[in-house]
Order: sequence, then C-alpha cells, then structure tokens
Amino acid sequence: MSAVSLSNPPGGGEGEHVAGRPREFIQSLERGLGVIRAFGPHAPEQTVSELATTTGLTRATVRRFLITLVELGYVASDGRSFRLTPRVLELGYSFLSGLGFPDIALPHLERLVAEVGESSEACVLDGADIVYVARVPSTSVITLTVNVGTRMPAHATSMGRVLLAELEPEVLDRYLAETTLKAFLPRTVTEPAALREQLAKVRQAGYAIVDQELEEGLVAIAAPVHDRSGRAVGAINLSTHVMRRSADSVRDGLVEPLLRTARLIEADLAGVA
Amino acid sequence: MSAVSLSNPPGGGEGEHVAGRPREFIQSLERGLGVIRAFGPHAPEQTVSELATTTGLTRATVRRFLITLVELGYVASDGRSFRLTPRVLELGYSFLSGLGFPDIALPHLERLVAEVGESSEACVLDGADIVYVARVPSTSVITLTVNVGTRMPAHATSMGRVLLAELEPEVLDRYLAETTLKAFLPRTVTEPAALREQLAKVRQAGYAIVDQELEEGLVAIAAPVHDRSGRAVGAINLSTHVMRRSADSVRDGLVEPLLRTARLIEADLAGVA
Repeated sequence: MSAVSLSNPPGGGEGEHVAGRPREFIQSLERGLGVIRAFGPHAPEQTVSELATTTGLTRATVRRFLITLVELGYVASDGRSFRLTPRVLELGYSFLSGLGFPDIALPHLERLVAEVGESSEACVLDGADIVYVARVPSTSVITLTVNVGTRMPAHATSMGRVLLAELEPEVLDRYLAETTLKAFLPRTVTEPAALREQLAKVRQAGYAIVDQELEEGLVAIAAPVHDRSGRAVGAINLSTHVMRRSADSVRDGLVEPLLRTARLIEADLAGVA
Repeated sequence: MSAVSLSNPPGGGEGEHVAGRPREFIQSLERGLGVIRAFGPHAPEQTVSELATTTGLTRATVRRFLITLVELGYVASDGRSFRLTPRVLELGYSFLSGLGFPDIALPHLERLVAEVGESSEACVLDGADIVYVARVPSTSVITLTVNVGTRMPAHATSMGRVLLAELEPEVLDRYLAETTLKAFLPRTVTEPAALREQLAKVRQAGYAIVDQELEEGLVAIAAPVHDRSGRAVGAINLSTHVMRRSADSVRDGLVEPLLRTARLIEADLAGVA
C-alpha cells in the first residue's frame, strides 16, 4: 500500500497547495465528503471501481477513503460493494438540531395542519435557494413530497419570496444581479424588476402567495419567522392544489391561521433564546 | 501558517499510522467529520477556541478544517463564530435517497395516518439501534416528536422488535450477548431470555406491540417491510397514547391497516427493484 499511497497522495493537504483553494485547504476532507455524496438514488451500492469513476479519484485513493469511512461507521460493505449507513444522517442532524427553528416549529405546524387540512413546511434560505427543514403533510390530500434537505430556487416559491423580501437592500441587489431566475412555468416571475416589485408587495403584506409558478396546480402561501432580534430565521408555508382551493380561497382561509402560527413560533423562539 | 501546519499536522494521513486504526486510515477525514459533529443543539455557533475545546484539536488545526468547510460551503461565519449551513443536510440525503425505502413508504404512511388517525414512522436497523427514516405525525394528537435520524434502542421499541425478530440466529445471538438491554420503565424487557421469547412470538405473529416500555403512555405497533428477496429493509409503525387506545384496541383496530400498508410498500419496492 505505501507505494500506492506515495504515487497517489489521497490527502493533498499537509501544506501542499491545491489550485484555486486557500493555502490551508485540506483536500482529503473534500475528497472524503465527495465519496459520501457519490452515493445516492442512482447508485446506493457501488464497488471501488464504480466509485472511482463517479468521483474521478483513483481506485487506490477511493479504497483508502472507504476503509476510513467503514472504520468510522459511515459506510458498510458486503466485501465487494459499499453503501452508506444511517450514521450519515447524524451529520445533517448536527445542522438541524443546532438550528432550533425546525424543532420549535414542528408542533405548531402539526396543529396548523390539523386546523386547516393543508400541508405545511418550514425552510431556511441558503444563497439563492430555500432548503426544507421540516414538513407536515396533510393526510387529506397527497401533494408534492419534498424531503427535509430538498432545495428549491427561492424566486419561484412562496417561502423563498418572504425570505428574499427580508434581505438587506445590498444583499438583494447582489442576488438579483447574480441569479438566473429560471422559468418553471409560463407564470414564473423571471424578470428582476418584476420580482423586485413583487418582493416590495410581500414586505408590505407580511406574507407571499405563489400561484403555480413552480409546479402546475401548486398554490402556496408563506410567512417569515423572526428571532427576538427581528432577523428572519426561516419561513413556514401552507400548500394546496388549485383543485382544492383557488388563490382567493387561500387568501381568505389560510392567511390568518398561517400568520397566527408564525407569531406562536416566534414567541417560542424568543422564549428559548 | 506553514510553521503551524508543520508543528501540528492536521491530516495525519499520508501513510502515517494512527494508533488503533487501519494502516490506510485518513485521519483528516475523521477530524473534519468530527468538527461537523461538534456543532449541535447545545453549541450551534462556536468560535475557533470553543471548537478546539469541543473537539480536542489545537486552534490551528481547527482553523484549517473550518477554512476548508467554509470553502466547501458546509460552514458559514460572521468572521468570529462559525455555524453549519443547510448544505450539511445533503450528506444525510445521500443516504436517505439511496435507501429508496423512505421515499416509497412515505405516501403509504400518509394514507395510513389519514385512515386511522395515529402517527406513523419508518425506520431501519443499525446495530443495536433503530434509526428513524420517515415520519408522518397524526394531527389529531401531539405525540412524541422524533426527527429523521433519531436513534432509539431496538429492544424497547416495536419497530426494533420486528427487525430483531428477523435477524439470522447467529446475528441475534451476538446482539443478545453484546447489548445491554437498558430499562427505560419498569415494564421494559431487559432479560435476554425474555426478549428472545418475545422475538419468537413476534416472528410468529408478523408484528410487534410494545406497551409502555420506552416512554410512559406510549403504545406502538410495528410490522417489517421486506424486499423482493425476502430481506427486511426496515419497519413501519403506528404509535398512540394509552389515553387514546389500550393495547387491546391497538390490536383490534390497527393490526390490519398496518399489515396491509406493509404489503403495499413491499409491492412498490418489488416494482422498482
């Protein structure tokens, strides 16, 4: 192994500079996380050779990372192929539990779904995307299934709109300058000036309704959730299908319970802060 | 930085052997994952000094890992303190999406919850623990909130019992020999011989009911879910509170819908396999 290791250093760290990266960058951490990410829906079980192809690393390097991940309990093997173990979930849990917001929001979202009979979700903003951090499906109708961790472009979603509406002016300018506002449907707002106008209205109203800009039939309403300092920590929504409720019925029936729930979550957040 | 790096090699890899680890072990990957795990509910934002204390690494080493994680987008900083970003969730998603089972089970669990009005969960077995991989809360009653990724000792849960009941005899022997069966309540089965007897009954029945062995008031029923080869890929449950249903009412009202749902999930799993 040592000849292989020398001819193909897996770490690249130890002061060795990686092009385009900070001097202190530890390449073996990037590569190890890359091996974890190489698994997924299309390749949940892979051999060393398959992972070498997926990651662009040599077989010898992949083998060292797999030995390490097996030793740490993140990967299991039947001797030939490798797969992730549930321990990988604990990495994401470090983020979710540290956030506080999802755990505090969840019981409130459950009560909200029980009251209005529509699905509810919570998200945080990450760059130009929203990332789902909690979900309570309505059991009266099967809608879009999104998992915690799923990303959606902020501009086409109601939760994204309320969070974009709270950005500092210079951060919003940068977002609008740098982001391609993708059209998912003909109705999707894709002009920066039109989106800016929408966000001003959302800021005024305190909520956003998005009517079939992401997916045909999907209507959603969202409200921001603030911490004690007034900073938006995330957003919550209710989503439904046009066959169940029109945008008008969303406005009449769902705005009040949604905003009330956001206030209750804020009170709980302030209590633990 | 280079003097610091040399006096305190963050990688330890590159062929340098770490005591008690395989020769090929890449210590910098272990340390990087350790830095991610050092965040959590009690310390979602930490300075370099705080992380050095939490992880047992030097400040210089922690700093290099943070620079790497910021560069990769897993950590954000306000200049002084550091926190995880939602990108960390994508690591857990690599596991969940590769598993297939949670995504396939979820719509079935939603229909089951709509039908019977109790909460439902799905889990997989990992060593002596079950790990929750999907959850559909009943909105008619607020019960125990468990997040995806949460671990519970298999012996005290209904889902753990059905999965333990499916273990090969020699794997079950090893589990019983190596596991301390913790008592959560006076009713918890903690004698290996008594648990073995329970598991034989569960294997016979095809489901398990656990009546207040984990938490006061919590009654749950679980069934295993098999893939086309007959291997148990996970379990599903319904859980309720003794104030709502007795163990007898669980047996009379919930066994049939739960087993029917397990069969539907198995049919879907066989279809995509």
